[in-house]
Amino acid sequence: MDHQNRFDAYVSDIQQALDKYLPEVDVPQKKVQDAMRYSLLTPGKRIRSMLTLEFCRVSGADPSLAMPFACALEMIHCYSLVHDDLPCMDNDDFRRGLPTNHKVYGEDFAVLAGDGLLTHAFDTALKASSRLPAAQVLDGLRTLSEAAGVNGMLGGQAIDVENDGHLANLDALCHMYALKTGALIKAAGRLGCIAAGADEERVKAAELYTASVGLAFQIRDDLLDLEGDEAIGKTTYPRCVGVEEAQRKIDELTVTACRAAEHFDDPSFLVWLAKKLAGRNV
Amino acid sequence: MDHQNRFDAYVSDIQQALDKYLPEVDVPQKKVQDAMRYSLLTPGKRIRSMLTLEFCRVSGADPSLAMPFACALEMIHCYSLVHDDLPCMDNDDFRRGLPTNHKVYGEDFAVLAGDGLLTHAFDTALKASSRLPAAQVLDGLRTLSEAAGVNGMLGGQAIDVENDGHLANLDALCHMYALKTGALIKAAGRLGCIAAGADEERVKAAELYTASVGLAFQIRDDLLDLEGDEAIGKTTYPRCVGVEEAQRKIDELTVTACRAAEHFDDPSFLVWLAKKLAGRNV
Repeated sequence: MDHQNRFDAYVSDIQQALDKYLPEVDVPQKKVQDAMRYSLLTPGKRIRSMLTLEFCRVSGADPSLAMPFACALEMIHCYSLVHDDLPCMDNDDFRRGLPTNHKVYGEDFAVLAGDGLLTHAFDTALKASSRLPAAQVLDGLRTLSEAAGVNGMLGGQAIDVENDGHLANLDALCHMYALKTGALIKAAGRLGCIAAGADEERVKAAELYTASVGLAFQIRDDLLDLEGDEAIGKTTYPRCVGVEEAQRKIDELTVTACRAAEHFDDPSFLVWLAKKLAGRNV
Repeated sequence: MDHQNRFDAYVSDIQQALDKYLPEVDVPQKKVQDAMRYSLLTPGKRIRSMLTLEFCRVSGADPSLAMPFACALEMIHCYSLVHDDLPCMDNDDFRRGLPTNHKVYGEDFAVLAGDGLLTHAFDTALKASSRLPAAQVLDGLRTLSEAAGVNGMLGGQAIDVENDGHLANLDALCHMYALKTGALIKAAGRLGCIAAGADEERVKAAELYTASVGLAFQIRDDLLDLEGDEAIGKTTYPRCVGVEEAQRKIDELTVTACRAAEHFDDPSFLVWLAKKLAGRNV
C-alpha cells in the first residue's frame, strides 16, 4: 500500500471507530453526548491514534487490536482541546475551522463534554479486554492515565497556563513541551506496542520515535507561528536558539526517529510519517 | 468495634490514603496538584469510599484491598463538585465551609484540578493491581468509568443542568437522581464486592443496598431543602408526592437496604449506616 493511502485508510478507520465507540443516543442526556460527538468527530489529523495503530502493525499484530487504545487517545486529546478553548482558558472561538464547543453548546456543556470525553476514554480503552490479555489492558490503561495526568499532558498544560507562555529558558520550555504535547504522543507509540505484545526493546524504540517526532512537530509549529502573528512574545524554541538551530534540531530529531523505526518490521511508513510531520519533502 | 468508632476509623484511614495517593510535590506543575489536594483533602463524610471498604470487609476480605477503588471514587466525586461549583455551572463560592476551588486557584486552575482528579482516579484505581488479580481490577475500572460517565453521574448532571432543576415528573426526577448521585453510590457497593472477590448474589445485594440508601439520602436532602430557602421552585421528591409520602419512601428504602445487608457477614454496621443516612435515630 502506498504511504498516503495507508495514512488515509487509518484516518478513515479511526473516524468510523470513534463514531462506533460514542454512538448517537436518544436519552434524556442526549445533549451532552451530542456535544462530545461534535468535537470528537470533527475531522482531524488523528496522528496520535494513527501512531498507535501503526506501531501495533509494525510489531507484527493486527492493528485493530490497538483500536480501543487509539480511540481512547483521541478522546483524551479532544477533551484537552475542548477545555483549553474555554473562556477561562484560551478563550478560542474556532477550532479546526468550526465554532468551538462552548460556542455551540454553551460553557456549561463544554465543561461537561470534556469531562465526558475523558471518562469515556477509559471506558473505550477497557474494550480492548475483549481481545487482549488482562495484563496488557492494565498496562495500556496505566500508560493512558500517566500520560494524561499531572505528570503528563495536564501538568504541561498547567505549567503553560501558569506562566502564560513565558517560560524561563529552553530547558523549562522543553520540559513543558515534553509534558503538554509529548506525553500523549509518546504514549501513542507505547500503546501500539503493548497491544501487539512487543518486547521492551521495541517499546523503548517506539517511545524514542514518538518523543522525537513529537518534539520535531512542536518546533515546526513554533517556526510556523514565527511567520504568522500568533504567540507574540511567548517563549518558543526558535526564539531561544534561533531559526537555523531550530531547523537543525528538527532534522536531528527526524533522523533519530527514522533510526528508531528500524527496530520494527516494514518501517517505511514510519520513516515517511516522521519526515511528513517534520515538514520535509517526502 | 462500636459503629461510630468504625465510622471515624474509616474516615481517618481514607483521609490518610487520599493524602498518600496524591502526595505533595515540588515540581513546576505544583500549583495544579495543590489545587487538586485543596479540594480532595477538605474533610468530608467519605460515604462512598466508606461503603466500598465496608462491603469488602463484610464480604470477608481485608478492607484495605479495596482502598484504591475507594479513593478513586472520592476523587471522581470531588472532581464533579469542583466543576459543578464553577461560575458557568452553579457558581458557588463556598463548599464544605471553605471557598470553592476556583475562588482560591482561579477558574482556569479549577478546570484543570477537576480534570486532574478525574484522571488521577483511574491512576489510583489501577494501583489495586498490586494486590488483586488483573480481571478484578478491570472489573473495578469498568464499574468506575460506567458510573462516572454519560450513562452515570455525568449524564445525570447534564440532565439537571439542561433542565435547570425543573424535571417534568417524578419518573424524570428519579431517573436524574439515579444517575447524578445514585450511580456513584451504587458503584461504591459493587467495588467493595469486586475487591473481595464476592459472588454475583452479594454484588446484587450490595447494589440494592447502595441504590436504596442513595435514594433515601437524596430524598432526605430534598426534605431538608424544603425547610431551608434552597432550591425554590425546583422539582424535588416531596414537591412531587408530598412530605408524608416522601418520609414513608425513605423508611421503605431503609428497610430494603437493611434486608439487603443481611446477605453479608456481620451486617450491623451497614444497618446502622443505612439508618444514619436516612436521618433516623440509630
